[in-house]
Amino acid sequence: MPPTLTAFEHSPDRGQGLARDMRVRWALEEAGQPYDVRLLSFEALKQPAHLALHPFGQIPTYEDGGLVLFESGAIVLHVAERHPGVLLPAAADARARAIAWMFCALNTVEPPVFERAMALVLERARPWHAARLAMLEERIHDRLHRLAAHLGDADWLEGAFSAGDLLVVSVLLRLKTSGLLDAFPSLARYLARGEARPAYQRAFAAQRAVFAAGEAARGGAAPG
Amino acid sequence: MPPTLTAFEHSPDRGQGLARDMRVRWALEEAGQPYDVRLLSFEALKQPAHLALHPFGQIPTYEDGGLVLFESGAIVLHVAERHPGVLLPAAADARARAIAWMFCALNTVEPPVFERAMALVLERARPWHAARLAMLEERIHDRLHRLAAHLGDADWLEGAFSAGDLLVVSVLLRLKTSGLLDAFPSLARYLARGEARPAYQRAFAAQRAVFAAGEAARGGAAPG
Repeated sequence: MPPTLTAFEHSPDRGQGLARDMRVRWALEEAGQPYDVRLLSFEALKQPAHLALHPFGQIPTYEDGGLVLFESGAIVLHVAERHPGVLLPAAADARARAIAWMFCALNTVEPPVFERAMALVLERARPWHAARLAMLEERIHDRLHRLAAHLGDADWLEGAFSAGDLLVVSVLLRLKTSGLLDAFPSLARYLARGEARPAYQRAFAAQRAVFAAGEAARGGAAPG
Repeated sequence: MPPTLTAFEHSPDRGQGLARDMRVRWALEEAGQPYDVRLLSFEALKQPAHLALHPFGQIPTYEDGGLVLFESGAIVLHVAERHPGVLLPAAADARARAIAWMFCALNTVEPPVFERAMALVLERARPWHAARLAMLEERIHDRLHRLAAHLGDADWLEGAFSAGDLLVVSVLLRLKTSGLLDAFPSLARYLARGEARPAYQRAFAAQRAVFAAGEAARGGAAPG
């Protein structure tokens, strides 16, 4: 039996590939690992059955035999470790560097990027929205500046593509339509290189199909 | 030669153990691994010599032979992997669960907690401060509620103490004087259990000594 992921039945990003199951789908596609998906409504996320799998009532989860995992970063690392040489280099020091970029994506780059996404949804009507958005975008700009300085004119952060690139690219995707990447053409190209990978394309299409099917069902049309 | 960490010469938290070198010191103490520390001024963090080690100009870094790592989560994981059975269980599934809690600490629990710390420093004079703080504390409360539900009356998140607990406790330390843990006595006890570990105590004393020596030097007093 292939592993099973959970994902949103109706992703709030309307199939743009920004939900966190996308990162795991992409890693599984890079590894050539088939997987099943169980779709969940927003209501189901907070029910005991799902909370038993994910303590915070979120997606994705990963079930494989008796193992249940949550946290997309941890699942990507687990997939990488099960498929040596695909998403993490074999040499010990290079492997540790790739893992450092995984944590960097999630604990250094993503927090201000995610805060910006939250502010755009939750604080748009607040009187402080514009001022706070400017503060957040300054923090993001600083992160992007440092990231671009490290990347230089390389294709990937540490030689070959790794799970570190997968997660950094996944975070940058949240900025794709923000205009914040305009000042960093090398990062825009880096993002485009990530999106051009066949494994990314397959993962994107799979999550997109979920959204399209949901739209068709809601509209009463035949599933596409 | 033991590995070398970098830490603040003068920690902004005044030796409360909230800077991110503390997490790595604690992990090294749990592993019984001696280490050296190189202290850096705020100016030195942004100089080319340090940026070559840490792309984002932060602490901590970890140098061991030819390996240079950044990101406290990645360094804790590296230390855990070098000392099997101390910070990660040996069994594959249990190990993956402990790593899931590491990512959870840094990507699910810490972001709103860190945003609150930032808001208290950067937004205190803004007219929106109180309203935004209330929003952030509601997000934190929700995370703590879920965390407490998972912990139940267990000592640690997944059986034995692991690197996952080390990072979750490290994040909860930021809330110690916030009052937000008052509604969750089991989490306050969990935090206290973490702080009571001899390895934590040794790590705390070591970072505290750096701060005390810096204060003594600035005051012109003899180093204590």
